[in-house]
Amino acid sequence: MTNIRQLEDADWPVIWQIMEPVVRSGETYPYAMDMTSDQARGMWLDVTEAAYVAEGDEGELLGTYYIKPNQPTLGAHVANCGYLVSAQARGRGIATAMCEHSQKEAVRLGYRAMQFNLVVKTNEASVYLWQKLGFDVIGALPGAFKHPHHGYVDAFVMYKVRVKQG
Amino acid sequence: MTNIRQLEDADWPVIWQIMEPVVRSGETYPYAMDMTSDQARGMWLDVTEAAYVAEGDEGELLGTYYIKPNQPTLGAHVANCGYLVSAQARGRGIATAMCEHSQKEAVRLGYRAMQFNLVVKTNEASVYLWQKLGFDVIGALPGAFKHPHHGYVDAFVMYKVRVKQG
Repeated sequence: MTNIRQLEDADWPVIWQIMEPVVRSGETYPYAMDMTSDQARGMWLDVTEAAYVAEGDEGELLGTYYIKPNQPTLGAHVANCGYLVSAQARGRGIATAMCEHSQKEAVRLGYRAMQFNLVVKTNEASVYLWQKLGFDVIGALPGAFKHPHHGYVDAFVMYKVRVKQG
Repeated sequence: MTNIRQLEDADWPVIWQIMEPVVRSGETYPYAMDMTSDQARGMWLDVTEAAYVAEGDEGELLGTYYIKPNQPTLGAHVANCGYLVSAQARGRGIATAMCEHSQKEAVRLGYRAMQFNLVVKTNEASVYLWQKLGFDVIGALPGAFKHPHHGYVDAFVMYKVRVKQG
């Protein structure tokens, strides 16, 4: 079972262990590959509305996500989320559980839709998963992501109009 | 003739005169309609890489634009710009002049492409102009903008791969 709860300050060292290899790989998020723990913490926690963790039966942390408005005021009814899953917990449905949780949270927080701004095309597992969870590919941004191995690759804008109710 | 130069601190009071009615209308930008001059200044100047003004023959200010990376590091080769034209100077090609200038500046600053994240569909003049200047509608975000008169309206993501050279 996966339990999802709000991220607490004490979680950060483990969250950074989950996040660091993702940041260092540079394959899925546009963050600086040499980002420090403090920078990542500022980005994940300070500029977001809320952040959550997924934990397993023993309370071990398996993943994290944030939710925030994708635009200021007149676009603030559209949520943006970012998700990270521990390398050790892949293939166990953690991303699915977090995305479904985030959609319920989005409704609770008053959002009407959810948008992902830069889903890297080569990150096929994520593209597939978000589509399975009801997100549409709104369009492809040519060469919008600088991949460390593949060079400039396309990225998708993905969007879900009605976020999951209850 | 329109001259375009970097925005200077002393320009702000006049720039705010240009910006305020646009902000108050809430029809084209997602900013809070009750935004103060200080808030607008922080948004337009502090979070951007550079800001410019368009001035007429007498040095009068006709418009302004900013340029900044649309995403952090691995997406920072795509520029984002925002443009504002004085209500008194509409129909004189100021937006065109600023957009062409911004594309040259984008090249000079090392950008490879330019993206507009939220072009409100009801702002037909802008949609038409950006297309004329080589931007593609990448996709439409359903109901992504809360228009004060029309309610939730669609917004376009627009993108130009090769920004104008020289």
